[in-house]
Amino acid sequence: STWQQTGRLQCRALDVESNRTFLKGDLFQLDDVIEAQQFDREILSAIFEVAREMETIEKKSRGSQILKGYLMATLFYEPSTRTRLSFESAMKRLGGEVLTTENAREFSSAAKGETLEDTIRTVEGYTDIIVMRHFESGAARRAAMTANIPVINAGDGPGQHPTQALLDVYTIEREIGRLDGIKVGLVGDLANGRTVRSLAYLLAKYNGVKIYFVSPEVVKMKDDIKEYLTSKGVKWEESANLKEVASKCDVVYQTRIQRERFGERIDLYDEARGKYIVDRNILSAMQKHAVITLEVDGDPRAAYFRQAKNGLFIRMALLKLLLLGW
Amino acid sequence: STWQQTGRLQCRALDVESNRTFLKGDLFQLDDVIEAQQFDREILSAIFEVAREMETIEKKSRGSQILKGYLMATLFYEPSTRTRLSFESAMKRLGGEVLTTENAREFSSAAKGETLEDTIRTVEGYTDIIVMRHFESGAARRAAMTANIPVINAGDGPGQHPTQALLDVYTIEREIGRLDGIKVGLVGDLANGRTVRSLAYLLAKYNGVKIYFVSPEVVKMKDDIKEYLTSKGVKWEESANLKEVASKCDVVYQTRIQRERFGERIDLYDEARGKYIVDRNILSAMQKHAVITLEVDGDPRAAYFRQAKNGLFIRMALLKLLLLGW
Amino acid sequence: STWQQTGRLQCRALDVESNRTFLKGDLFQLDDVIEAQQFDREILSAIFEVAREMETIEKKSRGSQILKGYLMATLFYEPSTRTRLSFESAMKRLGGEVLTTENAREFSSAAKGETLEDTIRTVEGYTDIIVMRHFESGAARRAAMTANIPVINAGDGPGQHPTQALLDVYTIEREIGRLDGIKVGLVGDLANGRTVRSLAYLLAKYNGVKIYFVSPEVVKMKDDIKEYLTSKGVKWEESANLKEVASKCDVVYQTRIQRERFGERIDLYDEARGKYIVDRNILSAMQKHAVITLEVDGDPRAAYFRQAKNGLFIRMALLKLLLLGW
Repeated sequence: STWQQTGRLQCRALDVESNRTFLKGDLFQLDDVIEAQQFDREILSAIFEVAREMETIEKKSRGSQILKGYLMATLFYEPSTRTRLSFESAMKRLGGEVLTTENAREFSSAAKGETLEDTIRTVEGYTDIIVMRHFESGAARRAAMTANIPVINAGDGPGQHPTQALLDVYTIEREIGRLDGIKVGLVGDLANGRTVRSLAYLLAKYNGVKIYFVSPEVVKMKDDIKEYLTSKGVKWEESANLKEVASKCDVVYQTRIQRERFGERIDLYDEARGKYIVDRNILSAMQKHAVITLEVDGDPRAAYFRQAKNGLFIRMALLKLLLLGW
Repeated sequence: STWQQTGRLQCRALDVESNRTFLKGDLFQLDDVIEAQQFDREILSAIFEVAREMETIEKKSRGSQILKGYLMATLFYEPSTRTRLSFESAMKRLGGEVLTTENAREFSSAAKGETLEDTIRTVEGYTDIIVMRHFESGAARRAAMTANIPVINAGDGPGQHPTQALLDVYTIEREIGRLDGIKVGLVGDLANGRTVRSLAYLLAKYNGVKIYFVSPEVVKMKDDIKEYLTSKGVKWEESANLKEVASKCDVVYQTRIQRERFGERIDLYDEARGKYIVDRNILSAMQKHAVITLEVDGDPRAAYFRQAKNGLFIRMALLKLLLLGW
Repeated sequence: STWQQTGRLQCRALDVESNRTFLKGDLFQLDDVIEAQQFDREILSAIFEVAREMETIEKKSRGSQILKGYLMATLFYEPSTRTRLSFESAMKRLGGEVLTTENAREFSSAAKGETLEDTIRTVEGYTDIIVMRHFESGAARRAAMTANIPVINAGDGPGQHPTQALLDVYTIEREIGRLDGIKVGLVGDLANGRTVRSLAYLLAKYNGVKIYFVSPEVVKMKDDIKEYLTSKGVKWEESANLKEVASKCDVVYQTRIQRERFGERIDLYDEARGKYIVDRNILSAMQKHAVITLEVDGDPRAAYFRQAKNGLFIRMALLKLLLLGW
């Protein structure tokens, strides 16, 4: 992308040779975490290793102090309490400190007319790393281009939410034990969800992956991702039969089907909603029963809350890597 | 209650034998702090002892580090800045860290449809203890039933606010020097205030207590509490003459009389309001002059601001006990 | 002022003899930081020296721990994210802890009817220093009169914002290297900005200062400041020609010209706005090129973002001085 060619912010994925090992004390390859495309398989694997170390640290009574004296700003232009608390817990579990605002729009109030770039230049003077949530696609990249300190994208509107994508892949690896050769069902609204699109993108980095798309017609996975998968040699197929798909999958990743996507066609919504929910009936059809979904959280095989915890470990790992290196 | 019989959350009050001593290092008897009924006289007394130790710690320059490495989430579904700051100060005075949200409703926004239980399962992954404020009665109990970490109820709608009840009793003991045999005037709106109801409930645990209810007819203390007091052998009487009552009391606890409780009868409101305010005239009629009220704070005998500080000590004590034990 | 004669809060500026040195460990002369008038030239100079030490501390990896165990409350009655983050960063860079509320109005909600004084008495029980932002002029002084702990005014409505005034003077000294004998252009809306008024007031403490006022007729500097400058022997002149003024200045301090000040006269606004913006054309006319302004931040000579950082150092210095002394 043109972005990769401009300024200090680089996507290093292309530079990383396979089988490189990252030595303790080495610099982290990334200056910022802006989009899922920055990560190749080798970096992912090394990050996941650090995340596993973080699980051990977090279980220890009283956490770690490796980030003591470091200060993180959570600069949120819209509230996202779940994401914010996850990052803030990650920083504090490592001994770091946090400046919080969910009111960052106030910086750019009409009276002040301050640009995002102005705000970033001010906030970077107060802190060592910025975690930013914004309502505009591309905002995180602009922030990273401006800042001389690391920026982590905690979601920029309909754009990217890379730490979510990483934690999804990490959760699948933790639940299933591997990523090569897995069979994944992506279920629900596949057209609009940035997380399911990023997940498909990242899964393409692994060998022998098979993806099943299960969705109502109106919210089918878009062609760009399908073409990308095909170009990477990833097999995929579409199906309307969730139970049959589930019986072939190692893991089912379910996104919520939102009524507002169906407009006037409430009949289609009601039909779709009933069909594509992972319930106990579907679970019993699965072989390995790893499900990442909001809907069946009473079932111990549903990885949803373990997934939230995995998000903590991934964020601890990224904070450590961006501030201290490997 | 049925609640005592279900799940892991237990009200241990009934199990505690009298004259038991709590040894340093023993586990705290309670997993969570949900309602005033959890506390019997012996636990109250032991908690008050810890609160006294906290007074010493807090006065020391630079506080304590006994909760260093522990993380508390203040999960507020509605703002209550006073209560939140009190808990957060308590945690930080002991060296602990805090994750804050006054925006917890955002978790359960329509788009996400997340239940309180879902939120608790997520937040408990980020933290060691949850202090929750909610707008629905019973919410704290539901949270405690779900969480595997301690939950403190910081007020759940018209339900309970147990740390407030504890600090009221603690304040009376600190101001008067004892709880057995005290004479307490409860003044103002006795029908609607959860704090005055909890206070009456807790005072019943002490011997020889006498309670005077002074209130306008429309906001009289309800029969359930009166019957409870009678069943516990606590003497009480009702009076319309605040000055006469004050002359017999060790302490007067005054709640605000709110206009909206009187509906159309503004005349009754105006009459009631004028009658039941503890002013200097009333104070001079009292023997020991301990007043817990908002109205006479210019007077050194009014314990209101000392009461706020006592709330800090009680909360420090509870955080210490729930996280570290006795 | 009458304020200087009442209560414990004092403006010590008058007591300070020239050439006094402040020894390490001496008490700070001020109990609170409420208004720019509290600072004389000698204290300013000593504070700036501490601020320079803070620059060194802040650049050190992992900051300082000199305020470890101290707790600051940012009690904001209206949001001001920039100011709040600056203070909170200052406290945390020194190892201190923070309680935050941007929701302080909630204390005095109609239902509770609590006064500012009541709130301060409660909050001072939770913390060691209060940084307050309020919407009413004079609120900071009232808070300082009430509190037994230091209060810093972080802006009280149209009143004072003393830390902003200090950082402006500090920035000029850092950019130009001295304050005596400097020539300063104050440009833009000079009638309404409290910062430009405080700056003129503080500059009058230095020798041989020359001030140029450049503004549209409707928002000219008011007579009170002009008379004050004259009484202190400070030379000033008014001009409508920014370029000519710039060619004579060491530093230009520009405030935004706000449309709403012009009422119906949009024509005057449009004319004024075009005339009084420091652009590259103006910059090239200047000799030393130090500009404090929002408008030309792409230019390395614009001190705006260095100014934000200077604010951090000034606030670190004040927190240190108020809590620990010299």
